[in-house]
Amino acid sequence: MKLLEGAVDHGGSLGRARALFPNAVLPFVDLSTGINPHSYPLFDLPATSLWRLPEAARGRELIEIAANIYGAPSPASVVAAPGTQILLPRVASLVRPGKAMVLGPTYAEHARAAAIAGHDVVEASDFATLAEADLAIIVNPNNPDGRIIERDRLLVLAAGLRAKGGLLVVDEAFMDVGPREHSLAGDVGQGGIVVLRSFGKFFGLAGLRLGFALADAPTAERLDMQFGPWAVAGPALEYGVRALADLDWQDAMRASLAEATGRLDALFSRFGVPVAGGTTLFRYLSLPDAAGLFSGLGQSGILLRHFSERPHALRAGLPGSEEEWRRLESALADWASRREDRSKGFKQ
Amino acid sequence: MKLLEGAVDHGGSLGRARALFPNAVLPFVDLSTGINPHSYPLFDLPATSLWRLPEAARGRELIEIAANIYGAPSPASVVAAPGTQILLPRVASLVRPGKAMVLGPTYAEHARAAAIAGHDVVEASDFATLAEADLAIIVNPNNPDGRIIERDRLLVLAAGLRAKGGLLVVDEAFMDVGPREHSLAGDVGQGGIVVLRSFGKFFGLAGLRLGFALADAPTAERLDMQFGPWAVAGPALEYGVRALADLDWQDAMRASLAEATGRLDALFSRFGVPVAGGTTLFRYLSLPDAAGLFSGLGQSGILLRHFSERPHALRAGLPGSEEEWRRLESALADWASRREDRSKGFKQ
Repeated sequence: MKLLEGAVDHGGSLGRARALFPNAVLPFVDLSTGINPHSYPLFDLPATSLWRLPEAARGRELIEIAANIYGAPSPASVVAAPGTQILLPRVASLVRPGKAMVLGPTYAEHARAAAIAGHDVVEASDFATLAEADLAIIVNPNNPDGRIIERDRLLVLAAGLRAKGGLLVVDEAFMDVGPREHSLAGDVGQGGIVVLRSFGKFFGLAGLRLGFALADAPTAERLDMQFGPWAVAGPALEYGVRALADLDWQDAMRASLAEATGRLDALFSRFGVPVAGGTTLFRYLSLPDAAGLFSGLGQSGILLRHFSERPHALRAGLPGSEEEWRRLESALADWASRREDRSKGFKQ
Repeated sequence: MKLLEGAVDHGGSLGRARALFPNAVLPFVDLSTGINPHSYPLFDLPATSLWRLPEAARGRELIEIAANIYGAPSPASVVAAPGTQILLPRVASLVRPGKAMVLGPTYAEHARAAAIAGHDVVEASDFATLAEADLAIIVNPNNPDGRIIERDRLLVLAAGLRAKGGLLVVDEAFMDVGPREHSLAGDVGQGGIVVLRSFGKFFGLAGLRLGFALADAPTAERLDMQFGPWAVAGPALEYGVRALADLDWQDAMRASLAEATGRLDALFSRFGVPVAGGTTLFRYLSLPDAAGLFSGLGQSGILLRHFSERPHALRAGLPGSEEEWRRLESALADWASRREDRSKGFKQ
């Protein structure tokens, strides 16, 4: 199937950006991901976190904090892994090869992972049809458009799947910025549900590779066995333990991201770019000339995420500094004035 | 099967050590692993290696350097993963569930991983019987006794397995300290062979989690797909690229480890502890009173590795500083004098 061919573009690759916009103003302002540009404050790692095998007791500490923060039934429901990505084929392998349905359009790696696990993969555009699946996959809130499926509806779907030995996977990679009342983290004890949580996006530390799967305890144990001891690296353990326990930082960051999102929406709106959705970690833009905006900003060294399968849509992450805000504003102004010139029939 | 029950003790856990020897002199001198105590020099990581998703181009650079250093046929034969451990069940899953044979006694995780992959697992004590396996697993040089199987014999075994669709897995976790002429890294292009290489042991950076599988290109691609993009964390990428390319450090370290091993053997010999094998990263001790030596040193805060299934054997890693050498020497002297007292019939 096509999704297995070649590498999928996820944004975040500066190498690709340089190839695409060889004459761009450098450095790139990378707004192509949904990773928080305001990371959890960096600190000096203890040398032992690099030297020694990750200590089992520290791993248990991480699992306990994660269970608490995400609202999982217990630490026995939580599996820590080196990133959510590496969990996907293992989670898809929890059910026998059958019919996997991904509520789309969404993050492409879910379909790829389900295919690797041997499933026939279908992208469903209608939530109701997911009941026909053996493995149903929903990103909630959705990437890139921010669409939210309410918890009640998810629980009904999960009950139906569970009754026939199926599985509902809810990827809550962006749920740290809410709406957390629709998280299924507290419901995984019922069985037939796996919730995925990502550490790197909200905490702005994607390079560390840390992600979690929440499931009923026997399923969590099956998953954990696939990774064995020491799956999470020392640096990820240290940051995970400290950052996940820091509720003050998390609350302040949620407020600050909401504010930045308001500012970003106002900026796009000023230049006639409609914001059609998103979360407070990224905005979803929908406009006929998405391709023109993508390449116009790209030449100014501002990198958005475009989608080959949705030519009228773009995703924009948050600028990380006043300098980046200024460059985005000026690039938007250039693009808008070129657009105006074109509409007056002038040649560039 | 028993190997799946509970956690396997691998050494390296200070939590476990504290529970075992609550009155030990602290801090522990941890000689329970084969991890080099003289790590590659630490350096400041670029903040972007924590903030951003690991860049694909940097990953390719790592793969190229690894292919070169290990002597793999090409970068297409190399898969980088967050530690060798996480590779084991995936490698064992490359062949249909059948008969897995592990040349033992050896590192217990291989049998565990093969069982997870659905194989019937047998520990073979005789190299010749491995020809009967669908999946044959050999640690070379072996952990903990340092036993070496010559490359010629491995190639004959591999040819037989390949002819019937089987697979030979050679775990070369300690091959950095040789004998490298018996590595199968250059032979993986023939197919039917997977070689595992570990970054953390020789470079003394086990906390970073970095390991490699070498195989023919189609097999490497199958493995790589299971991990997806960004499997190796930013910090591991940065250290991997720098340390693997640093041939001067590697050559000097090999010489220095050989020297330290000579010193350790002489020290054990002085106190009547026979060294029966090992590599220059760990020594294998074989003596009737292994249990007494383990607990005697443990009470002095010196942690060796013992093996529940081999009560007469111990493994000792290298002390990392003159202070650690001094403490080992003094602990050995205490143990030897208590032994002498006992043999004279005195009561402690």
